[in-house]
Amino acid sequence: MTFGIVTLAIGYLLSVLGVAMIVPALVDLASNHADWQSFAVSALLTLFAAGTLILASHGGPRRMTLRQGFLLTVMAWLTASVFAALPFLFSDLGIHFVDAFFEAISGLTTTGATVLTGLETLPPGILVWRSMLQWIGGLGIVAMGIVMLPFLRIGGMQLFRLESTDRTSDKILPRPAQLAATIGAIYVLMSLTCALLYFVLGMSGFDALNHAMTTVATAGYSTYDASLGQFQSAPIYWTATVFMLLGSLPFNVYIAAVTRDPRLLVRDVQVRGFLLMVAAIWIGLTGWRILAHEIHWFDALTEVAVNTTSIITTTGYATTDFTAWGPVAMVVFFMLLFLGGCAGSTTGGFKIYRLQITVAMVAQALRRTIMPHGVFRVEYGGHPVDSDVRESVAMFAMLYALTMAVLAVLLAFCGLDFITAVSGAVSAVANVGPGVGEIIGPAGNYSTVPDAAKWLLSLGMLLGRLEIVTVLVLLSTLFWQR
Amino acid sequence: MTFGIVTLAIGYLLSVLGVAMIVPALVDLASNHADWQSFAVSALLTLFAAGTLILASHGGPRRMTLRQGFLLTVMAWLTASVFAALPFLFSDLGIHFVDAFFEAISGLTTTGATVLTGLETLPPGILVWRSMLQWIGGLGIVAMGIVMLPFLRIGGMQLFRLESTDRTSDKILPRPAQLAATIGAIYVLMSLTCALLYFVLGMSGFDALNHAMTTVATAGYSTYDASLGQFQSAPIYWTATVFMLLGSLPFNVYIAAVTRDPRLLVRDVQVRGFLLMVAAIWIGLTGWRILAHEIHWFDALTEVAVNTTSIITTTGYATTDFTAWGPVAMVVFFMLLFLGGCAGSTTGGFKIYRLQITVAMVAQALRRTIMPHGVFRVEYGGHPVDSDVRESVAMFAMLYALTMAVLAVLLAFCGLDFITAVSGAVSAVANVGPGVGEIIGPAGNYSTVPDAAKWLLSLGMLLGRLEIVTVLVLLSTLFWQR
Repeated sequence: MTFGIVTLAIGYLLSVLGVAMIVPALVDLASNHADWQSFAVSALLTLFAAGTLILASHGGPRRMTLRQGFLLTVMAWLTASVFAALPFLFSDLGIHFVDAFFEAISGLTTTGATVLTGLETLPPGILVWRSMLQWIGGLGIVAMGIVMLPFLRIGGMQLFRLESTDRTSDKILPRPAQLAATIGAIYVLMSLTCALLYFVLGMSGFDALNHAMTTVATAGYSTYDASLGQFQSAPIYWTATVFMLLGSLPFNVYIAAVTRDPRLLVRDVQVRGFLLMVAAIWIGLTGWRILAHEIHWFDALTEVAVNTTSIITTTGYATTDFTAWGPVAMVVFFMLLFLGGCAGSTTGGFKIYRLQITVAMVAQALRRTIMPHGVFRVEYGGHPVDSDVRESVAMFAMLYALTMAVLAVLLAFCGLDFITAVSGAVSAVANVGPGVGEIIGPAGNYSTVPDAAKWLLSLGMLLGRLEIVTVLVLLSTLFWQR
Repeated sequence: MTFGIVTLAIGYLLSVLGVAMIVPALVDLASNHADWQSFAVSALLTLFAAGTLILASHGGPRRMTLRQGFLLTVMAWLTASVFAALPFLFSDLGIHFVDAFFEAISGLTTTGATVLTGLETLPPGILVWRSMLQWIGGLGIVAMGIVMLPFLRIGGMQLFRLESTDRTSDKILPRPAQLAATIGAIYVLMSLTCALLYFVLGMSGFDALNHAMTTVATAGYSTYDASLGQFQSAPIYWTATVFMLLGSLPFNVYIAAVTRDPRLLVRDVQVRGFLLMVAAIWIGLTGWRILAHEIHWFDALTEVAVNTTSIITTTGYATTDFTAWGPVAMVVFFMLLFLGGCAGSTTGGFKIYRLQITVAMVAQALRRTIMPHGVFRVEYGGHPVDSDVRESVAMFAMLYALTMAVLAVLLAFCGLDFITAVSGAVSAVANVGPGVGEIIGPAGNYSTVPDAAKWLLSLGMLLGRLEIVTVLVLLSTLFWQR
C-alpha cells in the first residue's frame, strides 16, 4: 500500500487548518490579547507540517484505493484534532494536553462537550477558534458523508452513492470540485443568514457569528457557560431551532433542490421522516409540560422545541436545565441522545435513514414470521434495499450499542457515577455533547471528569464521528494483509 | 381460523395449574393456616374453567397451524397468569388485583420481581405457591423454547428446529410425549439434587425445596426478604451458582447428552460460549474487587460468582447489595441485565446464541467492508447461518432495545426516577427481576412502584418471555386476514 495520496490530502487539510488559525490570531490582536501569539505559533507549526506532508507525498499515484480511503478518513480526523489542540495548549488557559485535545476533537467532531468554564472571561480568539473548529468540522462531516462514506460503504451509506441514485443520473454535478463548491456555497449562505438573523434579534456581532457557526454545524459550543440560555429570547431560540434543523437535512438533497427542483427537498423520504419525528416529539413533550406543569403553551413549545431539537440534531445547546423538569424529561432526553439527523448532514447519532430501514426490516421480518412462504421486500423511499445495505445498517446498530456499552463500563472504572458514565458514553458516541445528570447534564460540563475518562470520551467521539466501522476496519488484520 | 386446539391446550394447562394449587392448600392446612381456603377456592375456579375449555373445544381438528401456535403461546401465558393470581388475591395478603397479577406473571415468567415484603411472616402456602409458579414457569419456558418457538420461527429460534438439526436425524426422540417426558425427568432430577444439597448444607427442608425450585428455574423468588443473603454460607452460594448455570444450559443438548453422548454437552458451541463469558465476567469483576477493595480472593470470587451468575442467568437472587460496591458495579450489573443464558433453557434475556450470531454477523459485515467482492459466510457452530435466521436475530435485537426504550419512557411517565425506570424496563423485558438503584435494586423490591408502572412492567415481562415477536405478530393486521 502506498500512502502518497493519504499524505497529500492530510497535508492539504492541515494547510487549511493552519490558515484558519490566522483568524483567531487577528481577533486577539485586534482586541489587544497576548494570546494571538499562541495562534501564530500554532499556525506556523501546522503549516510547516502541512508543507512537509505535501512535499513528502510528491509523485505518488493520484487515484485513491478503498484502503487508502479508510486510512485517510481516520488519520485526517486524528491529525487535525492534534494540531487543532495546539492553540489551546499554548494559550493562557493553562490546561494540559488531554484537555486541549478533548476540546479540539469535541470541536472538530461537532460534539460540543467542553472542559472549559467561565467562557465569558476567555480571550475572544479562543472562543472564535472553538466555533471555527466546529464550523470546519461540520463542513468536513458533510463532505465525508457525501463523498467518502458511500465510497467506503460504511453503515449503509452506500445507499447514497452519487452514481447510483437516479437523482444525479443526468450528471448535473459530475466533478468533485464542483460538488465541493456547491456544498460550500450552501453551507456559507446558511451560516451567514443565521448570523444575520441572530444579530438582528439582539446578539452582538461577535456572538452572532460564533453561534451561527456552531448552530449550522449542529455542534453546540457557545460563548457563554449558560449556552443559548444566556439570551432568554424566544425569537433567538426559534432561529436556532430552524437552523439546527436545516443543518440536519441531507446536503445531497439540498444540491438536488438547488440545481434541479426545490420540491425535491420536501419529497425526500429521509427529510419527511426526520421532520415528522421531530414534530411528534415536540407535540408529545409540550403536551406533557402543559398538563404536568401548567405552563403557557407557547413558552412550553419554545423551550421544548429548542432543547429537544438541540439534542436530536446532536447540537447540544441548552436554554435551561431541562433535566430539572423531572424524571420524564431525563429519560426522554436520554433516549433522544441516540437519534441524530439525516445522512449527509452535519449531525451525528444513529441517523434517520437507519431508523427507517431498521423499521422496514423489522416489519418485513415480522411479515415473514407470519407468512414464512410470503415474499416481502425491504423498501426505502419506494426502492428495494439490497442485502448489502441491510447488513451494513444492522451491523452499525449493533456496533453502536456495543460501543456505548463498553465505553460506559470503562468510564465507570474511571470513577464516573452511573448516570454520568452511561449518558456520557451515549452522548460522546452520538456526538451530542451534554449527557444527563448533575455533572455532564445541560447545566454541567466535562471539566471535573478524570483525565482517563477524557481520553476515553475523545475516543468515543472519534468512533462515533467515523461511524465506528471505519476505525474498526483499521484494527482488522484483514485490512493490513498484502 | 378455528380455536379448537388452542382452547383445548389452554384447558389442559389450567387443569395442571388447578391441581398444582392443591399443594399450597395442603401446606397451609398442615401448618394450620386459614389461607388454605384461598387456594381451595382458586383451585375450584381454575379447574372449572379448565373443564369448560376442554369441553368447549370438543371435536375440532387436532393439527396445529402456525397462527394457532402464536395464539396459543400468547394466550397460554396470559390465562395462566390471571388464574395463578387468584390465590394471592383471595389470601389474607390484602392486595389488589394488580399486585396479585404482577406477582403471578413475575413468577410464571420466572422474572422474580416481587411486590411482597416481610416474606418471612407470610403463610407457607403463599411462599410455596410463588416457588411453584416459577418452577412450573421454568418448565414451560423450556418446552416453549424447544417445541414452540422453533416452530414459530421466533427470533432465530428456527436454528433449533429439532427436525433440522443433525443431532436428531437418527430419530432418537421422535414423539413429543417422549420429548416432554425426558425434559421433565431432567428438570425434576436437577431440582431434587439441588434441594438435597441445599438441605445438607444447612437449609431447612422447606427453604431447600423452595429455593431449589426457583434456582433451577433461574427465577429468583426467595422465602426471605434478604434473598439468598439470608444464609450467609459460601457452600450454599456455590450450590446456587452451579444450579443456576445448569438451568441456563440448553435442554435439547441435555437430551442429546443423556440419550447419546455426554460429551455433546461440553462440545456445544452455545454452552462453551456461555461458560466462557461467565468465567470472563467472574475473573474481571473479582480482580477489580480484590484490587479496589482489598477483599480476600475467595470471598470476592464467591460473592461475584453468585451475584453475577444470578443476574446473567436472569435469576435475580442477591446475597448482598452489590450496587453498594460502587458505580463500576452498578454499570456492570446494569449491562449484565441484558445477557441471559442459552436457547432452550429456563433463562430470559438476549441469549448467548444471538450474541454469537450477532458477533459473527458483525465480523462478516466488517470483512465485506474491507473486501467488497470477497465471499464471507456467517457461521454458527461450523454451519452456515441462513438469511432467515440472520434476519430474525437482527430483528429481535432491534425490538429488544426498542421495547426497553419505550417501556423506560412510559415508566418515567408513571413517576419512576431515571435509574428505576431504565433499569426496571431492562430487567422486566430480560425477565431478570431486580433492577439498579435504591428502589428496585438488589436491596429493594417493587412494592412502592405505582400501579400503572406495575401493569407496564407486567406487560414488559410478558413481552420479554414471549420474545416480543410472538406478541407483535398478534397485533399485526396481516395475522388476522382470512
